[in-house]
Amino acid sequence: MCQTKVLSAPSAKAKFERTTIERRDLRPQDILIDIKYSGICHSDIHSAYDEWGGGIFPMVPGHEIAGIVEAVGSEVSKFKVGDRVGVGCFVDSCGECEYCLNGDEQYCTKGVVQTYNNLDYDGNPTYGGYSQKIVVKEGFVVRIPDSLGLDVASPLLCAGITTYSPLKHWNAGPGKKVAIVGMGGLGHMAIQYAHALGAEVTVLSRSMDKKDEALRFGADHYYATGDAETFKTLAGRFDLILNTVSANLNVDAYLSLLRIDGTMVNVGAPAEPNQFSVFSLIMGRRSIAGSLVGGIAETQEMLDFSAEHGVVPQIEVISADQVDEAYGRVLRSDVRYRFVIDVATL
Amino acid sequence: MCQTKVLSAPSAKAKFERTTIERRDLRPQDILIDIKYSGICHSDIHSAYDEWGGGIFPMVPGHEIAGIVEAVGSEVSKFKVGDRVGVGCFVDSCGECEYCLNGDEQYCTKGVVQTYNNLDYDGNPTYGGYSQKIVVKEGFVVRIPDSLGLDVASPLLCAGITTYSPLKHWNAGPGKKVAIVGMGGLGHMAIQYAHALGAEVTVLSRSMDKKDEALRFGADHYYATGDAETFKTLAGRFDLILNTVSANLNVDAYLSLLRIDGTMVNVGAPAEPNQFSVFSLIMGRRSIAGSLVGGIAETQEMLDFSAEHGVVPQIEVISADQVDEAYGRVLRSDVRYRFVIDVATL
Repeated sequence: MCQTKVLSAPSAKAKFERTTIERRDLRPQDILIDIKYSGICHSDIHSAYDEWGGGIFPMVPGHEIAGIVEAVGSEVSKFKVGDRVGVGCFVDSCGECEYCLNGDEQYCTKGVVQTYNNLDYDGNPTYGGYSQKIVVKEGFVVRIPDSLGLDVASPLLCAGITTYSPLKHWNAGPGKKVAIVGMGGLGHMAIQYAHALGAEVTVLSRSMDKKDEALRFGADHYYATGDAETFKTLAGRFDLILNTVSANLNVDAYLSLLRIDGTMVNVGAPAEPNQFSVFSLIMGRRSIAGSLVGGIAETQEMLDFSAEHGVVPQIEVISADQVDEAYGRVLRSDVRYRFVIDVATL
Repeated sequence: MCQTKVLSAPSAKAKFERTTIERRDLRPQDILIDIKYSGICHSDIHSAYDEWGGGIFPMVPGHEIAGIVEAVGSEVSKFKVGDRVGVGCFVDSCGECEYCLNGDEQYCTKGVVQTYNNLDYDGNPTYGGYSQKIVVKEGFVVRIPDSLGLDVASPLLCAGITTYSPLKHWNAGPGKKVAIVGMGGLGHMAIQYAHALGAEVTVLSRSMDKKDEALRFGADHYYATGDAETFKTLAGRFDLILNTVSANLNVDAYLSLLRIDGTMVNVGAPAEPNQFSVFSLIMGRRSIAGSLVGGIAETQEMLDFSAEHGVVPQIEVISADQVDEAYGRVLRSDVRYRFVIDVATL
């Protein structure tokens, strides 16, 4: 066993405390990672505040992990000590079901083991990246290209793949009109990916505040959803709407912005149910869909794509002492656009 | 002008009255049809009861029209007097927008002219198939194959195309597991098409009452949705769910029956909004979609497919005097499976 310092929430909505936990001894296929940076995802807050229910406390959040390989198990073949690596939202899956075999481990029929706030297949709680070290099976570790700093790479492991995967799946690319709803941690990545994939990108954000930055990230157009005219102007415009907002929107209003056969894909997950009218779908053969992160191979593809196209998040690096404050700022949308914990400050 | 006998609803929810209306003189591209049979669709009831709002009264419903060509305009080339023909849910579209040019006239950006309860492009109200004669542009008339009786052909013009089109669009076929929700006018057609297309077909109906008939229509499996075990047994089973029910269901429960990447397509249109949880979509990259009838070319394809595969509705032919009573029976689900008015009784 290896002791490691962590930032731990003793109970729902409690302040974080510095403590230590044990990481398991390396099994043959395990990698010990010296974590350098850990991003703060909105779902960390949902989990630490137990808003989705079923929270396992004490909880060590964090599923945007970037670090250096410190040791490898006897059968590890893909990585060696010193490699720059990342870990995302899950750390194990059955490996045998049709979805795992198809590279869609996130939809494993046995259920993936999430990086934190979950039980592994032995029944032990998992603890995430607000931590100095973590032990992960090599099959769930990805390589971070040399041209990506570990600080900016960490949010790619969730915010990056969560937006890259649906844009690829629903064919964002040349000739397609794509709207990105919300310009936070996910949204500002989605703009960059949609642009790099060749789509015509429109940002829909509450106010005009972020217009200049949106255009800098590659948006072609920007509209404020607080202005009712926006929904008239853009009626029937988009092939794809990627909704990154983690709160319920007026789904019917957004569906009216889709072309025939258009799809509105949700990647934010509000705790409350939402409403829609079947008419909004029928009258244009439209779809409402959802997408959950991406598989391991696609996560590697996303990192390589990010390196090739210079797609990185705009981050604010904070110390371990600032995490509680950072949560408050995320909830007030007062972050441009992702907090990343410098794990050396733990 | 040509006078024709009709069955007309003077106001919302009023009993039908026999009266006469005028049909326009034939324009060069028009066809005068001697209507033989007119199906009763659930949406006739929604319209005649003004449940969707905006009803134009007096109203002559009916968009499942089968008859014989009685006269043709000077420029008509596709049809001649004596031809067996059908008219479905719409009688005009702009013909110029990308959707019309693509054969998806039902999604015309100018708005299709519906067969009844609508205004045509000259601003005149349209009157439907509960009528002895109708005048329709030849581009919106389809040919009924000789092997299909006009009585059983009439419901194909709406119930047929409404179910055939989404099954084709979402690739129901060999190797696909398809669930049909609801076994009424639409559902009993959907079973037959999904089976003829080669899919493995499961019927989900409230009770076990219709099991024998479902199997006779080609279903491979049948489950009662009134039994909570059904939702456990079938979890994650289907590639496609075609929901033909015209009332709100528990969408999340049905979404749980979809495989990863599965789609639930709605063709019934409840007047009230429905609820869903974004989680139900995200956790399996699932979609909720809707589909509206089908284009003219696809309607012809559906009729030819129906003739080739012997797909016809099970109907109960009624006289014009029985329409009010038939509406009540549709609302009580007391019809197996489609009422068709014998227009000779008008």
